[in-house]
Amino acid sequence: MKIGVIGGGQLGRMLALAGTPLGMDFAFLDPAPDACAAALGEHIRADYGDQDHLRQLADEVDLVTFEFESVPAETVAFLSQFVPVYPSAESLRIARDRWFEKSLFRSLGIPTPEFANIHSQVDLDAAVAEIGLPAVLKTRTLGYDGKGQKVLRQPADVAGAFAELGSVPCILEGFVPFSGEVSLIAVRGRDGETRFYPLVHNTHESGILRLSVASSGHPLQALAEDYVGRVLEKLDYVGVLAFEFFEVDGGLKANEIAPRVHNSGHWTIEGAECGQFENHLRAVAGLPLGSTAKVGESAMLNFIGQVPPLDRLAAVADCHPHHYGKAFKAGRKVGHATLRSKDLPTLEARIREVEALIAGN
Amino acid sequence: MKIGVIGGGQLGRMLALAGTPLGMDFAFLDPAPDACAAALGEHIRADYGDQDHLRQLADEVDLVTFEFESVPAETVAFLSQFVPVYPSAESLRIARDRWFEKSLFRSLGIPTPEFANIHSQVDLDAAVAEIGLPAVLKTRTLGYDGKGQKVLRQPADVAGAFAELGSVPCILEGFVPFSGEVSLIAVRGRDGETRFYPLVHNTHESGILRLSVASSGHPLQALAEDYVGRVLEKLDYVGVLAFEFFEVDGGLKANEIAPRVHNSGHWTIEGAECGQFENHLRAVAGLPLGSTAKVGESAMLNFIGQVPPLDRLAAVADCHPHHYGKAFKAGRKVGHATLRSKDLPTLEARIREVEALIAGN
Repeated sequence: MKIGVIGGGQLGRMLALAGTPLGMDFAFLDPAPDACAAALGEHIRADYGDQDHLRQLADEVDLVTFEFESVPAETVAFLSQFVPVYPSAESLRIARDRWFEKSLFRSLGIPTPEFANIHSQVDLDAAVAEIGLPAVLKTRTLGYDGKGQKVLRQPADVAGAFAELGSVPCILEGFVPFSGEVSLIAVRGRDGETRFYPLVHNTHESGILRLSVASSGHPLQALAEDYVGRVLEKLDYVGVLAFEFFEVDGGLKANEIAPRVHNSGHWTIEGAECGQFENHLRAVAGLPLGSTAKVGESAMLNFIGQVPPLDRLAAVADCHPHHYGKAFKAGRKVGHATLRSKDLPTLEARIREVEALIAGN
Repeated sequence: MKIGVIGGGQLGRMLALAGTPLGMDFAFLDPAPDACAAALGEHIRADYGDQDHLRQLADEVDLVTFEFESVPAETVAFLSQFVPVYPSAESLRIARDRWFEKSLFRSLGIPTPEFANIHSQVDLDAAVAEIGLPAVLKTRTLGYDGKGQKVLRQPADVAGAFAELGSVPCILEGFVPFSGEVSLIAVRGRDGETRFYPLVHNTHESGILRLSVASSGHPLQALAEDYVGRVLEKLDYVGVLAFEFFEVDGGLKANEIAPRVHNSGHWTIEGAECGQFENHLRAVAGLPLGSTAKVGESAMLNFIGQVPPLDRLAAVADCHPHHYGKAFKAGRKVGHATLRSKDLPTLEARIREVEALIAGN
């Protein structure tokens, strides 16, 4: 079976690492000459709107999937004429737009921060009057890793904020005094079979994920599965979906979904019986899903800008380095480490060791 | 770091799957147009004696290693002029020749079956008179998976046997009434750091490995490590080495070594903290070695000739399919499954499930 992937970054690379042992071949469509997934498959170097090359991809592969959600809707619609595409065009349309996704959550009874649709500074001023400050203004599409958003703390921050984000459609979200951020990675097969990984505690810095720790018997696991299950069912979703929540007053408020394998699920490569990359491929290929149970206690630390020296990483017990083969650049995700330990105190100690290496010690 | 691999079969493929997350790139030198490792790196399609292409490989990579031991000595010597080669030319010279390897075992006090060097039918007749029947005549080099050998049960089998194996240098080995076959996978770093995986019980059919089961607290573990340690030390060995033994009367007799990652170590991909492929790469690259401890209870079943239907394999709990991407052909190793279960009774049940799929049920 040959899988077409729109995007050829580290997520595509890890999809290929998981799928090759299943006998799958890969083709990546990505305009970047140095797309790091290209080491593991065919690289069709073309823009995402290039219909000739999209057609070539469709002709070569058995199905198409995505490693990022900001794919133009026309691209998905075009491909769907010729080849099965998972997740569906409708799932992508919802997930790539903060207004659509939050509206979906609301319609399904899933709690969210307060939010309003913003098409102008006038809209923004009215929404701030309604929702209050602090609040966060976010572009409806194309935001990631803290980009495309602005925190509004006082009235002076509001003036001109809409123009500051480019005068594009936005949403305003009420600030949520959360006690933690968690994500649930779920996978749903073509036949509707659904599995959930354990909830993950996430720590961000400057909007970029730094640390994910897999939980055991989290008291909000069942509630999170209920919420995520509603979305999967509604969208007739196929593949891995990541759902980020704020923990608020012992409950959950929905932040956002990503219709793809997700950074907060990288620990599953070593830390779960069947990792998110393999399970995504099983789902889109119509295979039975693998177990989402944990193996030991696991965490993931991101390498931002550079990968610590490999000899130092390899010397840390329980540490599995993942180097993406990308050029080092400030603020760029260039690798991660999975830790898989026998118990939580050991895991905590290992996290400190890798954090020290990341800090350059 | 770029790694050159002589040979581009499934072992090279699994080396690349293990090394890519370490940020390594791969080039495979293999004359076969359909070398299955080529999906994961550069494929230099050339004969093993082609000095122009060997030089190209040496110029492109940081070091060279092997996925099979029957590499011409001249190839290794040639490459060694330009680039570090692990394991060493001397290790390969010994391991690829049954007379050299058995003589090494004897010199190190490691018990072996009785054996004799055979250069003619006259030698063979004399050795049979000395060692007795049954015995096994094996070519000194190029034998694998039961090829290049003949079991001599009665005097009539002896006549003409030397010519039957091609009148090439052979050894005669006394038949050993073994109660089991075990292998020890070891890894030794450039700095001499050495680690051993748990002993593996192996089951062969028609000379081809079918089933490997990793042991726990095997009573012969320490003895096996002692024997293998002597060989590693003597050869100043770098990389993974597999050592196959016969279990005889509660002790061990050395059968043979393979100076490379080994089929009986495939279970380590999922079944050990750090698999044999990653540990081989860590060793040759001069990195600290990873833990060889088991994760759960593990076994490996080979797929010979064809891979069972993927949807059936994926439906078996605890099963990790490995499809080599090779054309199916009778007698050919085309894949394997690793099983990783929480306890031995569960593992036994899973082995039966996969055996049923292999049998076509």
